[in-house]
Amino acid sequence: MNASTAELAIGLLHYPVLNKRGETIGSAVTNLDLHDISRAARTYGVKNYFVATPFEDQLELIEEIAEHWLNGHGASANPARKEALEIVRAVDGLDTMVETMSGPSRQRVLVVATSARQQGTQMSYGALRSHLKMNREPVLLLFGTAHGLAPEIMDRADAVLPPIGRQGDYNHLSVRSAVSIILDRLLGDRDRG
Amino acid sequence: MNASTAELAIGLLHYPVLNKRGETIGSAVTNLDLHDISRAARTYGVKNYFVATPFEDQLELIEEIAEHWLNGHGASANPARKEALEIVRAVDGLDTMVETMSGPSRQRVLVVATSARQQGTQMSYGALRSHLKMNREPVLLLFGTAHGLAPEIMDRADAVLPPIGRQGDYNHLSVRSAVSIILDRLLGDRDRG
Repeated sequence: MNASTAELAIGLLHYPVLNKRGETIGSAVTNLDLHDISRAARTYGVKNYFVATPFEDQLELIEEIAEHWLNGHGASANPARKEALEIVRAVDGLDTMVETMSGPSRQRVLVVATSARQQGTQMSYGALRSHLKMNREPVLLLFGTAHGLAPEIMDRADAVLPPIGRQGDYNHLSVRSAVSIILDRLLGDRDRG
Repeated sequence: MNASTAELAIGLLHYPVLNKRGETIGSAVTNLDLHDISRAARTYGVKNYFVATPFEDQLELIEEIAEHWLNGHGASANPARKEALEIVRAVDGLDTMVETMSGPSRQRVLVVATSARQQGTQMSYGALRSHLKMNREPVLLLFGTAHGLAPEIMDRADAVLPPIGRQGDYNHLSVRSAVSIILDRLLGDRDRG
């Protein structure tokens, strides 16, 4: 990937997210989200895949899974998974993601949320692509599990990407699919013939 | 989706595929491949998601999973999953996929394979996008589980799409991610601002 593009980090939030009734819940970390999303992120040169949960036991679960593939038996058996999981950062929430990315110089971070519906201050894929190419502030791209990010998170975003898919059509992509597609739209090769 | 585009169907093969040593194997059908890929396919207006395995017990497993979400308790609990799984077609292999798509008129089907590496007669994403827009023959897009489609399947394809990601870079996307990205490249709205 081009070294002079702005950094793009992925943030997957397990809380606060919504259930299908629109209530705020916490969802469980899954092994497959760690693997699939880290592999997709790594493919596009992403260096930080933050996985956020406020629950201690869930944070431990992330560490155990990562430990197995990074240092345990999985590491020699499957170096591709090790490379992918190297970019996972287990954190307790959005604040820690932003602090980590800001660094000691307290650099400004552009927080962009994603959603299955049109809401908030919209930023097009093209505009975000340009932002990244022009090497402006680093970008934290937020995804929610379950039925999406709770309003309190959406309110903290600087902008929201448009939903994938058309208004009114079937629109129930898994978060794994959504991350993959959005990474390709933002960082994929435009030269596709 | 535009009614006058050519039909695109997805075919996920569990046999013959390769393991990491390049040996031909059969892999197990997974619940998550059925769900994630059918949801992605449905989002892009795909009407047929063929899931192929020659193993009787595996075919039964697909039917049971689909049955639960289509007619069982899952159907009322989660209509979005029902809608997605409606497009799943359990078949025994590539021949049946092609026969089904050809139909009684024995219409010609363009078989396009996917791969994590550059091989075979390459067809660019742009060329396939144009093919679909010009409403030419229906297209069967093949994906392999495990470490990809075996040579005997690659040899039967009319063309192969280039790998996602750059030569030499990390290139270990899950098949779920690959299907999502490729569907977006072929059928997604180019007008992204």
